[in-house]
Amino acid sequence: MCEDCGCGDSELVPVEIHEHVLSDNNSRAQHLREHFVEAKVLAINLMGSPGAGKTAVLEQTARAFAGKYKLGAVSGDLATDRDARRLAAAGIDARAITTGSACHLDARMVHDALHHMPWRDMDMFFIENVGNLVCPAVYDLGQAANVVALSVTEGEDKPIKYPVMFHKADLVLLTKVDLLPHLEVDVSAIRDGLARVMPDPKVIAVSGKTGQGIGEWLAWLEARRP
Amino acid sequence: MCEDCGCGDSELVPVEIHEHVLSDNNSRAQHLREHFVEAKVLAINLMGSPGAGKTAVLEQTARAFAGKYKLGAVSGDLATDRDARRLAAAGIDARAITTGSACHLDARMVHDALHHMPWRDMDMFFIENVGNLVCPAVYDLGQAANVVALSVTEGEDKPIKYPVMFHKADLVLLTKVDLLPHLEVDVSAIRDGLARVMPDPKVIAVSGKTGQGIGEWLAWLEARRP
Repeated sequence: MCEDCGCGDSELVPVEIHEHVLSDNNSRAQHLREHFVEAKVLAINLMGSPGAGKTAVLEQTARAFAGKYKLGAVSGDLATDRDARRLAAAGIDARAITTGSACHLDARMVHDALHHMPWRDMDMFFIENVGNLVCPAVYDLGQAANVVALSVTEGEDKPIKYPVMFHKADLVLLTKVDLLPHLEVDVSAIRDGLARVMPDPKVIAVSGKTGQGIGEWLAWLEARRP
Repeated sequence: MCEDCGCGDSELVPVEIHEHVLSDNNSRAQHLREHFVEAKVLAINLMGSPGAGKTAVLEQTARAFAGKYKLGAVSGDLATDRDARRLAAAGIDARAITTGSACHLDARMVHDALHHMPWRDMDMFFIENVGNLVCPAVYDLGQAANVVALSVTEGEDKPIKYPVMFHKADLVLLTKVDLLPHLEVDVSAIRDGLARVMPDPKVIAVSGKTGQGIGEWLAWLEARRP
């Protein structure tokens, strides 16, 4: 029980309550999705471990799309607004969602944040989730696609060790590949693991340092615009 | 509400249930702690992000202490027993705890695993938690000390972004410091962040590749033996 909520309060929380939590979240997420689709805003749920490079990827995306598309974002963080400030400095209309101890965003948090943002004017809206490879996976946020940032420094076995997250991913951004010469990590082993857990494996290797793969990521985003 | 449970089902799960979950866990953890103390087993709760190097540190610890101390471990993992097998290969009497979707271990899981292990004969017992910088922080497991592995590849801001985890840490192992020449990361900024959130800041910089800091880590463990 509690197999689906990602919170781990196993035998002690009644399953009805977890089902209610997820069901309520799904309803709100569907409402959000209808808003995004109707306003032709491409909504992306960006997830990954702490330090996987989520914010860095969005900074690069903002610089590359400057003057071409209007970008918006919310950044989930337990205690600070650092990521949102970094995104704002890169040119994204960004707002922090401070979660306290909560290990993921939920649809209500995103919905509440949108009330304070001109999200209808945006071409792309990024939901940067809390750094966590477990909990965010099961909370729908109304996104058009799930993207998971996975740093090569995390090792080869993360896809099979955190299968729920990667099973739900439409795209994996394999980050920090400039560090590969200094690591004992085989990218083909990571790709093999992803192929085992992703229903439709799609991986782009990127480096914020060298710019490798960023063009392919931008093209992936543009192809998904409504 | 739900500020303390680390699961993030904020407004929707009654606070009484979360309090019950944590209260029940605390009772079981206290029971475990009494067992460990009575049997003179040093119990360490090792936490950190996915890929922070928790298993690698324990592998090195096992090799260094081979023939000197008897080591045991449980490894929390969502879906595999890879870490437990790595620890067993390094000479640790190790057992996997598969958590499904749960983002942390709890005292009941550890207690159940101990029933299948000769834990009373061990000098040190490592509880390798699920890779997660949020949820494991608030679940007492009967440990004598909390140790958090933080990789320098995760960036400078993790201590202030994940304050609950670092606030509860007795020691932070700053891992993969051999990669520092290839990163734009300032270790003093990480240390400054830790000093802001740890009540009694203690940091050891280690590298599995070069062996840096491993001696200091082993001495830290030995000094804590009952």
